[in-house]
Order: sequence, then C-alpha cells, then structure tokens
Amino acid sequence: MKAILAKISKRKNMESFNIQFALVRKALKTLPFFLLATILCADASAQQKQMVRLAKIVVDSAQLESYKAFAKEEIETSLLVEPGVLTLYAVAEKKNPTHITILEIYADSNAYQKHIKTPHFLKYKNGTLHMVKALELIETDPLVPAAKLTQVVERKN
Amino acid sequence: MKAILAKISKRKNMESFNIQFALVRKALKTLPFFLLATILCADASAQQKQMVRLAKIVVDSAQLESYKAFAKEEIETSLLVEPGVLTLYAVAEKKNPTHITILEIYADSNAYQKHIKTPHFLKYKNGTLHMVKALELIETDPLVPAAKLTQVVERKN
Repeated sequence: MKAILAKISKRKNMESFNIQFALVRKALKTLPFFLLATILCADASAQQKQMVRLAKIVVDSAQLESYKAFAKEEIETSLLVEPGVLTLYAVAEKKNPTHITILEIYADSNAYQKHIKTPHFLKYKNGTLHMVKALELIETDPLVPAAKLTQVVERKN
Repeated sequence: MKAILAKISKRKNMESFNIQFALVRKALKTLPFFLLATILCADASAQQKQMVRLAKIVVDSAQLESYKAFAKEEIETSLLVEPGVLTLYAVAEKKNPTHITILEIYADSNAYQKHIKTPHFLKYKNGTLHMVKALELIETDPLVPAAKLTQVVERKN
C-alpha cells in the first residue's frame, strides 16, 4: 500500500514538474515577442515625447547672407554636439528667399530647454535679433510617427 | 668611347625612369584625395539636383481623419517603394489641426515626375481632392545642404 502511495505521489510530482516545465517553456517562447513589444513601446513613447515644430522666420533682405551664416553655424554645431537635437532642417523659399522655415525636432522638452541655453544657440539668437523681422513658432504633431527622420551633418575635416 | 657613351645613355635612362617612377608615386599618393573629392562632388551635385518643397494644405475639418488615413498610406508606401522619394514629413499644427505642412524631398525632378504617376499617389490625390480646401506648393532651397536628412518608415510586419 505504502509503495503504491509513494508511486502515485512520485507520478503527481512528475506531472506537476512537467506542467511547470511546460509553463516555463511557453514563457520563454513568448519572451522575444515581449522584448520586441517593449522596444516598440519604448520607441513609440520616445517619439510621443518629441517636440516637433515649424519656425517661420522673415529676415531683413539686406542682412540675409549674414543671417544665413549665423543659422548655418548654429544648425551644424547643434547637430554635432547635442544628441537631443534630432532635426534642424532649414529651407528658404525660392520666390521669397527672405522667408525661412525650419523644421525642428527635439528628443523632448528637456532637450529643447538645454538647447536654448547652449553658447552656440545664444550666439545665433543674439547675433540675429536685429536681422529677424518676424518669427512664428508653430507647435505641431507628426502625421506619420512611423516615418522617422534622422539628420546627420557632414563634419568639415 | 662607345662604352662611355653607353654608360651615359644608361644613366640617362635610369634618371628618366626614376623621374617617371616618382611622378607615378606622387600621382598614387594623391589618388585617395582625388577619389574623395570626386565622391564629395558627386554627393554635392546629387544634393543640388534635389527637389525640396513645402506643401501647405488646409483640410476640411469634417474629413480630417479620413484625409490623414489617405496621407499616411501614401507617405508610407512612397517611402517603402520609391528610392527617389527621400523625405515626406507631414505635420499638423497643434492649434489648427486642419493645417498640414509636408516637407517633401525628391532625389531629382525625374523622381518627382515618377512619383506623381504611381498608383499610391493617384489613390491619395483622387481620394482626397474633395477634402482639400487649399493647397500651396512652395519650392525651396535648403540652407545647410551638409545637414542631410534621411527618413525610414518602419515596416508593419
């Protein structure tokens, strides 16, 4: 009788072990999907934190070349030294070359707050104050967050 | 006498060979710089050919969600299947969500001409005609061509 009971108990232990093992195996199988989901969620959340903005600037035509030189230096330096400045893409309208639009993307509002305290931003801001006739900052939401932009500036070696 | 002349001639040949060898060596030394310059020039020339444009669109507020769905599909498909479509970055103004701006960069005007004949562009164009209240296409020049944009769309797998 004792032997039979011991056998049943052993079988039950084995069954319990098998169930537990199957559960662990199942959990391990779903692990890659879980990790992928975590990465995607983190990525989506990082993009939700992004500050995406259009800066519309009208420059005094007499000082356009000087303004451009200031803007170029500021943009190149920001992209090279500030990881939180993701995009600063500036265009001038062909028909109205004094009308500049800059697409600005910052990793988050902290990155933006840091950016406007940097020496290169302050040099640009203070150096161009008397050149800028109008400035409009338009906060925006990207329509297709899955279509990600990246920007690199070629180093001058 | 003959032997002396032969010796002189041999020396002259050697000198000539040395000069030629030195020239070849010099040419080979400058080759990497030449190649680099060629690559940089080709890159600069490729960027000069780019079409960089701002599309400003005002959408009927009653059809905004439907417009966005059309735009999203068109943008994702273009970026996935058209190598000549470099950037289509669309933003909606937070304060005026019906005001959409799209930064469009095409490799050249041929790439743009191809783009507007694709089925996905025509589906978007014809599908949204009655939703678009205003459309302004503004040709632009980038201020800092060395600050290059690239855009990738995450595939939905």
